[in-house]
Amino acid sequence: MQDIGVGLLGFGTVGAGVVDALARNGELLASRAGVRPVLRRIADLDLDTDRGVAVDRSILTRDAQAVVDDPAIPVIVELIGGTGAARALILRALERGKSVVTANKALLAEHGREIFDATRAGGADLYFEASVGGGIPIIRALRQGLVANRIRRVCGIVNGTCNYILTRMEEEGLPFDTVLAEAQRNGFAEADPGLDIDGRDTAHKAVILAGLAAGTAVPIESVRVEGIRGVAAIDIAFAAELGYRLKLLAVIDHDEGTVGVRVNPALVPHGHPIASVGGVFNAILVSGDIVGDTLYYGRGAGRYPTASAVLGDVAEAARRLAAGDRGGPLGFEGGAAAAADPGAATARYYLRLSLRDRPGILAKVAHVLGAHEISIASVLQKEAAAGAFVPVLVLTHHAQVSRVEAARRVIDELTCVGAPTVAYRIEDFAAPAAGGKGEQRA
Amino acid sequence: MQDIGVGLLGFGTVGAGVVDALARNGELLASRAGVRPVLRRIADLDLDTDRGVAVDRSILTRDAQAVVDDPAIPVIVELIGGTGAARALILRALERGKSVVTANKALLAEHGREIFDATRAGGADLYFEASVGGGIPIIRALRQGLVANRIRRVCGIVNGTCNYILTRMEEEGLPFDTVLAEAQRNGFAEADPGLDIDGRDTAHKAVILAGLAAGTAVPIESVRVEGIRGVAAIDIAFAAELGYRLKLLAVIDHDEGTVGVRVNPALVPHGHPIASVGGVFNAILVSGDIVGDTLYYGRGAGRYPTASAVLGDVAEAARRLAAGDRGGPLGFEGGAAAAADPGAATARYYLRLSLRDRPGILAKVAHVLGAHEISIASVLQKEAAAGAFVPVLVLTHHAQVSRVEAARRVIDELTCVGAPTVAYRIEDFAAPAAGGKGEQRA
Repeated sequence: MQDIGVGLLGFGTVGAGVVDALARNGELLASRAGVRPVLRRIADLDLDTDRGVAVDRSILTRDAQAVVDDPAIPVIVELIGGTGAARALILRALERGKSVVTANKALLAEHGREIFDATRAGGADLYFEASVGGGIPIIRALRQGLVANRIRRVCGIVNGTCNYILTRMEEEGLPFDTVLAEAQRNGFAEADPGLDIDGRDTAHKAVILAGLAAGTAVPIESVRVEGIRGVAAIDIAFAAELGYRLKLLAVIDHDEGTVGVRVNPALVPHGHPIASVGGVFNAILVSGDIVGDTLYYGRGAGRYPTASAVLGDVAEAARRLAAGDRGGPLGFEGGAAAAADPGAATARYYLRLSLRDRPGILAKVAHVLGAHEISIASVLQKEAAAGAFVPVLVLTHHAQVSRVEAARRVIDELTCVGAPTVAYRIEDFAAPAAGGKGEQRA
Repeated sequence: MQDIGVGLLGFGTVGAGVVDALARNGELLASRAGVRPVLRRIADLDLDTDRGVAVDRSILTRDAQAVVDDPAIPVIVELIGGTGAARALILRALERGKSVVTANKALLAEHGREIFDATRAGGADLYFEASVGGGIPIIRALRQGLVANRIRRVCGIVNGTCNYILTRMEEEGLPFDTVLAEAQRNGFAEADPGLDIDGRDTAHKAVILAGLAAGTAVPIESVRVEGIRGVAAIDIAFAAELGYRLKLLAVIDHDEGTVGVRVNPALVPHGHPIASVGGVFNAILVSGDIVGDTLYYGRGAGRYPTASAVLGDVAEAARRLAAGDRGGPLGFEGGAAAAADPGAATARYYLRLSLRDRPGILAKVAHVLGAHEISIASVLQKEAAAGAFVPVLVLTHHAQVSRVEAARRVIDELTCVGAPTVAYRIEDFAAPAAGGKGEQRA
């Protein structure tokens, strides 16, 4: 069996997971892949911290570039993260025609085009299963399994920290700040949580998914991002009462010629598989024109789930190198899409209005909605707590996004309104189409 | 761009879907794969039926063997089904070193070892994504994405007809026979429904999944199969009351050295993603030692979902042939497992007893259970309808399967018992493990 040299850049949490998993399951992996990936060098600036895994210290180095340049190492695994050193090292490896395996979503989202161009120019291969959805093989599904499909929609929960916080808020009825602090204590959120809770990490992953759906690199600047920092426990409770769960979603809508990418908290109906995704789990729904809806679920991050994805890529890289199979397609081919106008889309909305508790007020609001061609599906006035304002919930029928935003601005200027209106989209998942046996059976 | 010739054997429902999808999305597929699969011949015994798709009649033939033998056709797609002509044609194609794409679960389950041996002997490649889960890329996930994992468990809904029937029974409170007849009228069940409702189709798929999990061909004879023909609406209703949904599951338990494969209706707790899989949809939960739990969901059958899977395989076969990358691993490598003793497993159970409505009767039953070391978790006596017997529901703690079966035989001999005891396993899905940020974050 042929050995294939692997160099690891970054010996942090996931790097140590890769080393440990390869030590445990390397022989099994080799017997399955028909080729043996061998870890030849590990580069990290910090060689002193105990990583908690057994490693031959002679393969450790502080010189990442030497690992990239080592001719005995055709597979480079980049787990440094960020867009600084990682970018330069990956570009160097690709120039040398090496196979690069990375979990670096920020780099792919912010410098995707440069990385993809370098991959093609170097006749190299780039694997990035670990960049989205942790151990869930979602990238492979999009690049290979669903290759015969025009991908119409990708919609999912791709940040475990946010999903953990929203799940705990619903379970315990606690406010955001309390649950965030708890998550930080328990290690489910960073000390600096902005990348997660402001939706930027979700946006990075959305851009990668959008690029695969649309067959072209999608600029991160085109993504509308709303995080979960402003989510109130009361809306989670009201949503639950109405049969919905609030989830932070990455949503990619891809039509011929346009792609719309957004990140926002949204109401998902109970009973839909996405709604039952709790805690740190991720789930991604992919709709193709041939296959219909498919969904992928699992741990979206963490040492071992991510190591599983990295090693799946390492095995494929090694197998293909041993077979002389180089320079395959990236997955960002076959398309060309402009950014969709986000305001032109339509959606159903959950609105929570804070209205003065007096006769005729609701009529004023209804008038504004009507003037913006927003049709009301249901209204629920909650009993007033203390104070002069009562929460009124309005669920709308499908309405144009830009009109809802305009109406919201008008409503929030009314003197009878006590606080800014809270607005969340209600995600509609198409019901399974009816069909006869010919449609149903293999 | 290089053309790769494809021959299609079987121009039925799925075959026509493949032709139609390739006509619609062939250019997109080619631009993504970097190679163009070209349909050169279609073989079917019936060339007269209108398949509802545009096709160049000059490529139609009744001579499947000539297609297999055509040197301009390196990729053979077998969609004939069954274990007769399909088996001979696939073996012939593999002998010639061709890449074979098949949806034939019966063949792989019943003659797997022969087919896998022929693939290796011919230096050929075998693709079978369409054999399990329709358009869900579950085979690719197991063969490639999760290659670094020891697969501990695979558990899923893999027959859309059964899931449709169980879903309708719950929704409408109707008996099995009524819903089966409705499903047959609507085209969701065959006129001869035995393959589906008696669990044999599920068993075929379970054997393929078990082989990939265990890394070795698993004999179909080792599978315990119970279908849904005997499922009563009352048990679906009682299960719902208790917080469960009844699903026909394929379950593969793989420990080092043993693999247990079974097909049976089981109670799945509400809130678990598997429970929310309704209608003809499929879902498969895969637990790996590195990745933890992952789940895959989508349409498990039908013309287009299956065509999506077939074309994903065709694209990979074509791409690898163009790169000279031949004779890759099958996925049935790296393991050796004996059949597990099915009676030695433990499970929680739902028991519905039919007991005479008299004092002291429940004590008799409890005594039998206790004597078999079966501990009762809860008892619910339902009000009697008409008649001398009342339904009594017993949920057990974990008990050994063979002891539950023995106890059931003893109970059913008691004079106070009016009808055979109904027993279903309650599937326990392990709760997400707790873990710190190191475990959680990429």
